[in-house]
Amino acid sequence: MSSRLLGYRGRAAELLQKFNISVGDYITIKSDVSHIGVLMPRYHYSDDTHIILKLDSGYNVGISIQNVDIITQHDTPSLPKDDTTCPKADAGLPNILLLSTGGTIASRIDYRTGAVTPTLDAADLSQSVPELYRMANIHPQEILSEYSENITPEDWLKVAIHIHNTGAKYDGVVVAHGTDTMHYTSAFLSFALAGFPAPIILTGSQRSSDRASSDATLNLMGAVSAIHNKIPRGVYIAMHSGTSDDIISVHAGTRVRKHHTSSRGAFRTIGGAPLYSVQENQIYGDTQHDYYHDVSYTPRINISRDVALIKYHPGFDVSILENLISSSCRAVIFEGTGLGHVGREAYDIIKKMRQSNMFVGMTSQCIDGRVGMTVYESGRDLLQLGITPLYDMLAETALVKMMWVLGNELSWDIMSRPIASEMKI
Amino acid sequence: MSSRLLGYRGRAAELLQKFNISVGDYITIKSDVSHIGVLMPRYHYSDDTHIILKLDSGYNVGISIQNVDIITQHDTPSLPKDDTTCPKADAGLPNILLLSTGGTIASRIDYRTGAVTPTLDAADLSQSVPELYRMANIHPQEILSEYSENITPEDWLKVAIHIHNTGAKYDGVVVAHGTDTMHYTSAFLSFALAGFPAPIILTGSQRSSDRASSDATLNLMGAVSAIHNKIPRGVYIAMHSGTSDDIISVHAGTRVRKHHTSSRGAFRTIGGAPLYSVQENQIYGDTQHDYYHDVSYTPRINISRDVALIKYHPGFDVSILENLISSSCRAVIFEGTGLGHVGREAYDIIKKMRQSNMFVGMTSQCIDGRVGMTVYESGRDLLQLGITPLYDMLAETALVKMMWVLGNELSWDIMSRPIASEMKI
Repeated sequence: MSSRLLGYRGRAAELLQKFNISVGDYITIKSDVSHIGVLMPRYHYSDDTHIILKLDSGYNVGISIQNVDIITQHDTPSLPKDDTTCPKADAGLPNILLLSTGGTIASRIDYRTGAVTPTLDAADLSQSVPELYRMANIHPQEILSEYSENITPEDWLKVAIHIHNTGAKYDGVVVAHGTDTMHYTSAFLSFALAGFPAPIILTGSQRSSDRASSDATLNLMGAVSAIHNKIPRGVYIAMHSGTSDDIISVHAGTRVRKHHTSSRGAFRTIGGAPLYSVQENQIYGDTQHDYYHDVSYTPRINISRDVALIKYHPGFDVSILENLISSSCRAVIFEGTGLGHVGREAYDIIKKMRQSNMFVGMTSQCIDGRVGMTVYESGRDLLQLGITPLYDMLAETALVKMMWVLGNELSWDIMSRPIASEMKI
Repeated sequence: MSSRLLGYRGRAAELLQKFNISVGDYITIKSDVSHIGVLMPRYHYSDDTHIILKLDSGYNVGISIQNVDIITQHDTPSLPKDDTTCPKADAGLPNILLLSTGGTIASRIDYRTGAVTPTLDAADLSQSVPELYRMANIHPQEILSEYSENITPEDWLKVAIHIHNTGAKYDGVVVAHGTDTMHYTSAFLSFALAGFPAPIILTGSQRSSDRASSDATLNLMGAVSAIHNKIPRGVYIAMHSGTSDDIISVHAGTRVRKHHTSSRGAFRTIGGAPLYSVQENQIYGDTQHDYYHDVSYTPRINISRDVALIKYHPGFDVSILENLISSSCRAVIFEGTGLGHVGREAYDIIKKMRQSNMFVGMTSQCIDGRVGMTVYESGRDLLQLGITPLYDMLAETALVKMMWVLGNELSWDIMSRPIASEMKI
């Protein structure tokens, strides 16, 4: 396989070679109908009977190589020379800081070079999504280059510090991020930058850009459009809604989780509807809502890893907790059963944890609903042992909040007070 | 507060005392309209402005004490004396073994005595839900008396052995069970009793019976009705669907989780619709479907606790895994991020786990969707390290299956083969 044909093999590669076409070329494919667009790369596990084009609309299509008559190459669609590097600022448009951390969304740009290393720069953007520059002056910066399963709490600090240092002069910040742990990062930014004056929107892509139905362009457009349309301050995740081809849901960064491994509408607000949606560059939702409840900007950008997230289940081995007591661990967030329970087998060790001055918080593995620890005897027993019920806070958010509480040496009481829309008491 | 008025206090207690009424009395309450039914107990956290009646229909209603004119007491509605202890068997009806393990559903009967200890017997049943005996000959037995957060793997064995020893002579088995861990128990019974010739249906109650909107009667009726309507063999959870007042969803016991802490429609089949539904004593769904894929009855009723369920997250402390290696733990089920990932920080320790001959399986914390470990570099790296991808198996089901595999000294390969509708490969 030629490196010009990254990922193409077998019959598809032969066809492209016949017409002397490379990945990144702007081409017309004639079969039953004609398609015009940029040839995208494929991955090794793909079939050899389809060619992927990115159309001018930003959508990708997969075209069967059966019945292809002819492929012709054109010049790249003309944009003013300036625009392909960095468009001139338009004083009437908002200024947006676009931070790239890696992930599928950032590797989508690379069809020009064939490389799949995560990278995202102004020239890439203006060429692939020129519509962005009609809504905002985009100021891209790459600060990390990681798929999000590898993002660490220390990486969260880098992102938060960067936004703290440079973000305030922009009308909004967009963070391009892998989807796997995007909701952990959004929770951290919510607490660390509580009250930050401009909106911070994380976005990503569930489908890599060599696939038809990639959502990369749409999600990025949605995030920029939300800022263009004056979404209020707060930390959000903007991702495809999954219910329609052109709706982006904008979720509160502390109330959202990745809830499907692969679908484009993978992110879900738990316990209600997403705060906003964006469709055809309009925003819907209550733009008077304040994510931070009138708090002024209070940056507290530290983190501690000394928190464990423990899902309780029948047959749970309490020696895991025993080991935590003798480790550096200072807090445990339980994902209990039902309304916030663990079995009687764990009571003694929880008592010891509390005697060792560990914080023990309770969320529910049910995900939907809220803990209610006064309803049954088990819950009341656990309250007696000194467990802190965490209302309807998501387990992931509770974990991150506690890491932030410890990192900033804040009072444990803060776990029971809403900071950034993370729970209703 | 008089013990005759269990849970009632303040104005509601005064009103009941005035008319000399006790919990368990069969009464008429006259206010704007008249209600007739049995006075139910309340709990201490309830308000003092409502009285709860169980109507003859089986539903509970909460009646405001405002505008109550008069309360009169009647004799208990007449049932033939035989019926209140154990109705005569009807040869035309299916015989159902009703096992009680405890939980909210089993404590709902106790309004006659005022006690809340979980207990369920034939007399209770025939008095409170006489309709059951129109659909089946019910043979109740109490084998445990625990809220399900306290149910252990050893309790699962008791239930499975009891069904193995006595269940085959019945047309079906209904297990009344607390809801918190019902889906863990249903998964275990699915594997331990694979191919059991009669249907086994777990059911419970999300709302205790002193509350209006208790679902105890409806759920029990639904389970019995499913057997009356010849649901095929398999292990199911029958619980209120949540979408309508009278629909019961019947979920595959390996594809279901408790997904809401408190709502009546708390149980959800993941990755599809419930297998069956029951409405007005009719069953809907494909009754030709075989839960076990043509396998004949192969009881393997052992369990090992040497399995840990680990949810990966940014900042995860790998020393938890380090400690597992030096413990009795022989297998770890990960709830990875996205398509089945953990961060690079955990690679070394996973390598060591595999070198120590531990099984390491991968599910996704997304819950919906399936792991796909060939899509990204991270997944491929983890496959290289010897992690077993577990398709779309739920984390809880994977945990229970591995406990069962180890307990019965079965080959690890079985984790990758469907036994009881737990996954699609």
